[in-house]
Order: sequence, then structure tokens, then C-alpha cells
Amino acid sequence: MEAYQRLKDLGLTLPPTPIPAGNYIPAKMCDDLLFLAGQGPSRPDGTWYTGKVGRDVTWEDAYEHARLVGLQLLGVAARIVGDLNRVEVIKVLGMVNAVPDFADHPKVINGCSDIFVAVLGDKGRHSRSAVGMDSLPNGMTVEVEAILRVLPRE
Amino acid sequence: MEAYQRLKDLGLTLPPTPIPAGNYIPAKMCDDLLFLAGQGPSRPDGTWYTGKVGRDVTWEDAYEHARLVGLQLLGVAARIVGDLNRVEVIKVLGMVNAVPDFADHPKVINGCSDIFVAVLGDKGRHSRSAVGMDSLPNGMTVEVEAILRVLPRE
Amino acid sequence: MEAYQRLKDLGLTLPPTPIPAGNYIPAKMCDDLLFLAGQGPSRPDGTWYTGKVGRDVTWEDAYEHARLVGLQLLGVAARIVGDLNRVEVIKVLGMVNAVPDFADHPKVINGCSDIFVAVLGDKGRHSRSAVGMDSLPNGMTVEVEAILRVLPRE
Repeated sequence: MEAYQRLKDLGLTLPPTPIPAGNYIPAKMCDDLLFLAGQGPSRPDGTWYTGKVGRDVTWEDAYEHARLVGLQLLGVAARIVGDLNRVEVIKVLGMVNAVPDFADHPKVINGCSDIFVAVLGDKGRHSRSAVGMDSLPNGMTVEVEAILRVLPRE
Repeated sequence: MEAYQRLKDLGLTLPPTPIPAGNYIPAKMCDDLLFLAGQGPSRPDGTWYTGKVGRDVTWEDAYEHARLVGLQLLGVAARIVGDLNRVEVIKVLGMVNAVPDFADHPKVINGCSDIFVAVLGDKGRHSRSAVGMDSLPNGMTVEVEAILRVLPRE
Repeated sequence: MEAYQRLKDLGLTLPPTPIPAGNYIPAKMCDDLLFLAGQGPSRPDGTWYTGKVGRDVTWEDAYEHARLVGLQLLGVAARIVGDLNRVEVIKVLGMVNAVPDFADHPKVINGCSDIFVAVLGDKGRHSRSAVGMDSLPNGMTVEVEAILRVLPRE
């Protein structure tokens, strides 16, 4: 149970799955691929971290939001697959709700990527795009979607 | 022919495939995955529904545009696969050409998701991101791309 | 070695893989799918082509940038797979750092699509979305990510 030990060592717990804001599901399997729906950073009370990065929110704060989203995505995967050790991250699309001259998207989305690698080790390493959005649902600061692979039971 | 019966019950017909606006094809298969190119809402005369959602266009109108795009995407899938009943929706990326403070992307992209579920039933349920774009080709209000699974012949 | 002959005929050489700007890798395999991380247009000295398309940069110049990114993506694929002839392009997401009223995204991203088809022939033909971003890392003009298929050795 390596991934769970790493979570414990990091002092982290998997947050509950946010309720989808529309007619979709948080994750869908296709063969061994698990497509995770985009998520934003959710507070325990169900509200979101909001604001334009580069104006209302610093990249350092947005990094923390992306880290939280990474943890939320792992939470969804753990519940769907049943064992986080059977999960490999393939591809991440990290979207930052930023001002037009923002340039540090990679630094922000590293928050999500760092948590994937910290919890899953080499299996957390992934290909990625990190880009700037004009707007995001509810004014969220970041939104990340991911494609994972589900490994066979050992 | 359940999907076609549902289309009939809804009073809908599959629109023709819009002509690609560049050097790409409307859909590409890879194993059992069908990657549908992004489409915008097309009028019968070949023009597009255009404008910034939240300024020129209400979310309710944009919902109808997303619904139309959903129908167009099903049209492409039906023509490629030959039978809409062999199609399952996996992942949707819904992009709204919105003003920077727009927050209701999920409500807009529900137009597409709703039509997928209405026509395909449980097979229409999918994972999704719904986000805001700074601009879209030809000023279109929405653009949606999707990943489908093609099920084996029964 | 058809693809390499075409490169030679076009007078092109595959550029080196840009160093990832964050905690991710340039490409990740999953079964026969190769997910290429988003790339921007890189100069030989490691700097990027920057600016807002439709204001600082014409679509014609941005077309050249997208073409360069296409070549960079082929370079990554060639190094990972070992043989460009075993590569098929499935899906492209082309993102243009554009002003809000920009409408010619397809013309820009054709730069990338054209090079895929010129080098790989029919195997270069792909499904695609071409859209407008509010901002991109380092102010790059374009960013393109792609999903490829790796074909078995003959």
C-alpha cells in the first residue's frame, strides 16, 4: 500500500468527490483508460477558490489550489478503482483562470503534478499541457482534467 | 434501433457533417476509440451561431447551440460507425466563447451532454470539462470535442 | 524510411526536444497511444516566439510557429518511438494565444497539421480542435498537444 503510506507521510487525506455541476460523471472508464472530469479547487464547505490568477490570486496561491485539485482527482480515482496503487497518470490538462498577460501556468499546474508524483512515485509522472483560460465555471482559479491508466491486479 | 427510436421520439434528425475548416478530418479511429474533432453550432445554410456568451448571447441560447453541436457530433459518429447504437460517449471537452467573468459553463455545455444522454441513454453518460475560451474559430459561441468508444457488433 | 525521405525533401530536420517547463515529461505511452505534452514554438537559443495573435503577430507568422511546433512534436515522437514511420497522428489540440475577436484559429493550426501530413502522408491525417486561449506559458503565440498511435514493427 505504498501510495497510501506516502499520503500518510505527507499528512494528506483524500477529499470527498465534488458533486458534478452538470449532466456528467466524475470519471469514465474505457478499457484500461480512466478519464477524469475536470475539477476545480473545492473547500470543505462546498464553495470554490475563485479569482483571476495574476490579479486577484498569486501564482503561489494558485499552486496550492492546483495541489488540492490533484488530491481531489486522486480521491476520485481511488474510489473508482478501489486501490490507488493500481493507478498511473498518463496525461494532464491544467487550465488556469488567468489575466491575459499571465505567463507562469507551468508553475501553477506543478501543484497538481507535484502531488501526483509525491503520492504515486514514477507512476505519477505524466505528459501535460498547462494553459490560460478566459473564464472557468464559478470563477474557479484552476481546473484540471486527467487521463489515467488502471493497472491490472497483481 | 433504440437510439434512432429516441431520436424520432425527440423529433430530431442527424444534421450533415460540417465541412472541416482546415487540414483535418471530422473523426479518427484508434482501436475502439473514436476521436471527434471539435465542432461549433452550424446553421443549415453553413453559417455559424456566433457571439460572446454573457454579452451577445445568453446562456440559455448557448445551451441550444451546445445541444445542436451534440446532435452534429452524433451525426458524425453515426456516419463513421454506421450504427449509433454501437456508440458510447467517454469524454467531452466543452468550450464556451465567453466574457471573462462568465461562470455558467456547465449550464451551457449541458446542452450537449443532455442530448447525448437523451439519445444514447446510459451509454451517453460521460466525463467532462466545461471551460471558457478567449476566442473560437469564426466567433462561434461554443465548440465541443468528444472521445467515444465504438462497441463491437452484437 | 519514407517519413525521413519526406523530411529531407522538405529540407527539414527534427529539432531537439524542448526541456519541460515543469514537473512533467514530453511524452507518455499508454498501450499503443502516445500522449505528447503541449509545446510552444522554440527558437534554437531556447527562447520562445511570443505575442498575441491578431495584435502583435499575424496569423501568417503564427502559422509558421504552429508548423515549427509540429516539427518539434514529430521530433519527440521520433526519439521516443525510434522510427517516425511507426507513428500515426490521431488527435490534435491547437491553442492560439489570440485577441478576443480572433477568428482564424484553423488557419494558424494548419501550420502544425500541414507538417504532419507532409511528413507522414495519410498517417498524418487527424481529428482536431483549434481554439483561442486567454494566455499561454511565457506568452507563447501557440501551443499544440497531440495524441499519436504507435504502430507495431513490420
